Amino acid sequence: MEKKLDPAKSVVLVSGGLDSITLLYYMRKLAFIKDGAPIALSIHYGQRHFREIASAAKICHSIGIEHVVIDATGAMECFMGGSQMDLSVPVPEGHYADDSMSLTVVPNRNMILLSMAIGLAISRGRGTVAYAAHAGDHPIYPDCRPEFVNALQEAANLAWYDGVHLYAPFIRDSKADIVTYGAGMGVPFQDTWSCYQGKDIHCGRCGTCIERIEAFQIAGVEDPTQYQDKEFALDTIRRSADV
Amino acid sequence: MEKKLDPAKSVVLVSGGLDSITLLYYMRKLAFIKDGAPIALSIHYGQRHFREIASAAKICHSIGIEHVVIDATGAMECFMGGSQMDLSVPVPEGHYADDSMSLTVVPNRNMILLSMAIGLAISRGRGTVAYAAHAGDHPIYPDCRPEFVNALQEAANLAWYDGVHLYAPFIRDSKADIVTYGAGMGVPFQDTWSCYQGKDIHCGRCGTCIERIEAFQIAGVEDPTQYQDKEFALDTIRRSADV
Repeated sequence: MEKKLDPAKSVVLVSGGLDSITLLYYMRKLAFIKDGAPIALSIHYGQRHFREIASAAKICHSIGIEHVVIDATGAMECFMGGSQMDLSVPVPEGHYADDSMSLTVVPNRNMILLSMAIGLAISRGRGTVAYAAHAGDHPIYPDCRPEFVNALQEAANLAWYDGVHLYAPFIRDSKADIVTYGAGMGVPFQDTWSCYQGKDIHCGRCGTCIERIEAFQIAGVEDPTQYQDKEFALDTIRRSADV
Repeated sequence: MEKKLDPAKSVVLVSGGLDSITLLYYMRKLAFIKDGAPIALSIHYGQRHFREIASAAKICHSIGIEHVVIDATGAMECFMGGSQMDLSVPVPEGHYADDSMSLTVVPNRNMILLSMAIGLAISRGRGTVAYAAHAGDHPIYPDCRPEFVNALQEAANLAWYDGVHLYAPFIRDSKADIVTYGAGMGVPFQDTWSCYQGKDIHCGRCGTCIERIEAFQIAGVEDPTQYQDKEFALDTIRRSADV
């Protein structure tokens, strides 16, 4: 009953970060465009700022991809606990591996986002939902693990008359691998947004900034991103390597 | 890894219809109250009217159950196709088994609602989510089938550090069975709301009204509901039995 992958008829969950934008480029490439193009879906669930989604909108527009934005703030407000949504909680600084980063976890976020993406796919007659879970996510986000994707795939197959294919091609890749793929496809990294802070440029101090800088470093790809305090990140990465 | 059922620490999805209110009474009974009580959760996803949720609110208040309402209208608006949400589409009249009733299906609704309920359960430290899928739902709603519940259970187990137990005790029962259980527990059926129309009293002509009337009839339980046109329903039920 599992549906086959159909990139030309897919919905791609895009946050606006480099992982999901690389995935969008990848799906667009697989679709060969002439056969159709993915639809990009961003879900606003009450993130601290709109920068990521604005980045996704800009990139989608520039490559002619339809970009759907769902406002799910009402849904998430009632159980927000993470610093991503509560402006009174300061954004934790430091390496992602630190305990402090668990503050940024929204309960059951991925199942909620994927269930909406599946809903959109069904309503638009599309049989594939792609999302950019990757191996680096697993330690802190339980719902990024391959086992979770498999289980949700099974549910997605049964959730509608025709099943929906859940596709997470980066699930066993590191963020550095994704940077490598993206560089090969000409992803405009400078237009993607990772930082938890919604300032003019990336802060260089929060977990996602550090992770981003580290990924470019490992991949050996030049990082076109402007950071407020890249030295902080580099120092944190060095110290974490020493442990 | 599957969590054990804990009714005193559960979230019960309540629409305000008789199935979910009966489930709420059932979970409350299992919880023995002194050990704690379920939280009721209603999700407004853009139903044609607010009557059902208002019914849930009234009943929860009267029995001292906390009632959380999530506004998910923004999420559902973008793929609404069903007559439940689009006021320009007339509510289909007739028996649920009719093709016309597929108009009332919201794509992937149950996965979306359950994923939010799981999110609330996690954020409130509750390990059980109960919902009132029943055997009569299956023919038209694919995501009410036991296989779907099992698959989503597996995903729920993996979606968080501790798994969440998905509990659908009525999944193999008919609506008539539920009426029987409810009658035994003193469920105030007159305060529950099933009708797709949001008028003062139940219309008696839409699929849910007909199904409701039929369930009381089969259960042999007196139906305290006031209907605008019960004769239409009884006639439809008779004709459907003749086929």
